[in-house]
Amino acid sequence: MAKADAGTGKTAESAKDRHRKILETAARLICEKGYEGASIQDIADACSLTKAGLYHHIRSKEHLLLEIQNYGMDVFEEQVLSQVVAIVDPVERLRACMDKNVLLVTQGWSKEVTIILHEHATLTGDARSQINSRKKRYVRFLESSFAEAIRSGRIRPVNPTVAAFSFLGMVLWIYKWFRSDGAITPDGLSRDMQDLFFGGLERAPAPLPPPRRKAARA
Amino acid sequence: MAKADAGTGKTAESAKDRHRKILETAARLICEKGYEGASIQDIADACSLTKAGLYHHIRSKEHLLLEIQNYGMDVFEEQVLSQVVAIVDPVERLRACMDKNVLLVTQGWSKEVTIILHEHATLTGDARSQINSRKKRYVRFLESSFAEAIRSGRIRPVNPTVAAFSFLGMVLWIYKWFRSDGAITPDGLSRDMQDLFFGGLERAPAPLPPPRRKAARA
Repeated sequence: MAKADAGTGKTAESAKDRHRKILETAARLICEKGYEGASIQDIADACSLTKAGLYHHIRSKEHLLLEIQNYGMDVFEEQVLSQVVAIVDPVERLRACMDKNVLLVTQGWSKEVTIILHEHATLTGDARSQINSRKKRYVRFLESSFAEAIRSGRIRPVNPTVAAFSFLGMVLWIYKWFRSDGAITPDGLSRDMQDLFFGGLERAPAPLPPPRRKAARA
Repeated sequence: MAKADAGTGKTAESAKDRHRKILETAARLICEKGYEGASIQDIADACSLTKAGLYHHIRSKEHLLLEIQNYGMDVFEEQVLSQVVAIVDPVERLRACMDKNVLLVTQGWSKEVTIILHEHATLTGDARSQINSRKKRYVRFLESSFAEAIRSGRIRPVNPTVAAFSFLGMVLWIYKWFRSDGAITPDGLSRDMQDLFFGGLERAPAPLPPPRRKAARA
């Protein structure tokens, strides 16, 4: 068993888990009832906390929304971006990135976190800028990887910005239609989507050099 | 000038325009304040109507949401689906469909209508089924067009369901990032996206037949 913190009877790990649980419960409630519709009391009830108990964990309702989005970005960066940034070949990097992002969206976290991350424009000011700049980092990473793949002749020339947002649209739209009990498995989806997207972009292996004798002068 | 209806002083056309204007205003408000946050009074105010006046045009707040979604699907079917269903070649059909859908999303209607159509899960029961079945019709059309293109050898074999949802994800994600004052034009985006998606799917022209003499036996 993990060692308990003196006094609180809770381990550092369980406090983190607890906080994560609150964020996921709040995300589910905000998705069900809308941001305006889900009151702090509703969220406290769903977490089996008093309102005062919930305020021990969160600063305000808007800050809670920011925390859910930051939590979503933390998990994304940990499970997707940081796993692939160091891959040298740009096409392998992009393929691995698609694979990990498809797996994250299909089985790695709650659908509600994805929804809050991509559909809730309720944040304002600094909070909004903070999340937007984290999202932009991903777009820039994709754009520069596509540009690199084009420069090195690994894929045919396409618009890197359109390629980046198309990649994102394909992968992020998944939460809207994928059913974990459906015919398509997460692994199958990742493979099919990579084939669809990269199968037609990657250049065929360089042709063999022509034979030395001058055959074409005839 | 259009002929006015006796008594009301309004033409049939302007009544339709008026209704459309109410739906677009309500869509904007629901996006700004959330479905729970936007009251019927707010919507009436934004339409320069009294609450009673607004109720002359709409049945209830939930029905208004259904009307906005049906209006979105009407415009989509009129400007995209009905323009392309009759195209015989499946790849030409799918390319034209992508073109018209990109143009619709970038300049054809309000962003708020797209948001309400794709992000608001507030509808329940029959209303929800009605919109879902209209959306499913589009998915089935795409799937069957991809399947037909594969059968006829026009594109390389891919999973038609994954192709259909990838097409949709690419096209529908556009409202999240496209800026009409940005560097990418609607026409340019349509062209680049078609190239990205279909450029690698369409089969290359059949290779020239090999030369008759046996050159490779040496």
